Amino acid sequence: MSLESRIKSAIRDVPDFPKPGILFKDITPMLADPHLVKDVIQAIAEQYKGEKIDAIAAVEARGFIFGSILAQELQCAFVPMRKSGKLPYKTISQEYALEYGTASVEVHEDGIKKGWNVLVHDDLLATGGTASAAGWLVQQLGGKVAGFSFLINLSFLPGEKKLADEFKVQPKYILKY
Amino acid sequence: MSLESRIKSAIRDVPDFPKPGILFKDITPMLADPHLVKDVIQAIAEQYKGEKIDAIAAVEARGFIFGSILAQELQCAFVPMRKSGKLPYKTISQEYALEYGTASVEVHEDGIKKGWNVLVHDDLLATGGTASAAGWLVQQLGGKVAGFSFLINLSFLPGEKKLADEFKVQPKYILKY
Repeated sequence: MSLESRIKSAIRDVPDFPKPGILFKDITPMLADPHLVKDVIQAIAEQYKGEKIDAIAAVEARGFIFGSILAQELQCAFVPMRKSGKLPYKTISQEYALEYGTASVEVHEDGIKKGWNVLVHDDLLATGGTASAAGWLVQQLGGKVAGFSFLINLSFLPGEKKLADEFKVQPKYILKY
Repeated sequence: MSLESRIKSAIRDVPDFPKPGILFKDITPMLADPHLVKDVIQAIAEQYKGEKIDAIAAVEARGFIFGSILAQELQCAFVPMRKSGKLPYKTISQEYALEYGTASVEVHEDGIKKGWNVLVHDDLLATGGTASAAGWLVQQLGGKVAGFSFLINLSFLPGEKKLADEFKVQPKYILKY
């Protein structure tokens, strides 16, 4: 069975989460299968083979799960990005639009070194708002956005185009709907 | 240099976080050093060598970082536990006391199979409230708490004794203050 099919079999559709009308792609059943997780991580690593990646940046909380494993696979730094007020040291912050209102993500001001090639990771690409904010944080600290890596791209939403337009780099993913 | 010393060198003390009078142990600088992360994970794996561990359970968000890598190292399941309302599927919930009021953590009701030996992980053991709640969730789903694994134990706080009393298993850690 292909990796795509294995992921699709493991993903659970949850209707009306987080609100009515949304069919949520729940990746938690994948996490019960360590072989699948390993194969997914290796497939992502393969996508960036030959590129110098200095760090994986990921937004809490789900982004931390595959993001930290990926950083170990590539033996690079892991840079946690968090909601406002969660990181203890000096931070910089980036707002992004939600359907109603805004949210923001933060990163430690010494979390990314100037000149680092940083791969932004999240499990799911939807509208791209969070990933875009993460990318701007990377650039604010003098890093270069080496790419955006996702497990899943909801291709009926504009996230892929948004990130490609803003950062001049094509997002990559393992599976799309 | 010993692993303990390397961790101590990498940890940053942040005064008055999250509130006045608390000296916060910030582990994020460790994450910039993938070799150190690897060595820490292998040291934890060594502590549970010869034991059958079916899953690592960890509470968001910091617990996800080392917890998911540890699950890959042991090639076992990773069970995310989250704050109320974050997990999409059917959950069970456990309240725990905070200094003022209560909080709760949730797990998917199919996240842990009956009879599984589950290792609860978090980066830091303080009062033990969160880890204890995680342990009760494991038991509510018919799992067995195989242990509690931390990077750091703040041994001037009662977490170690609390967990040992409640679960009849001695918490393990790499470093204590």
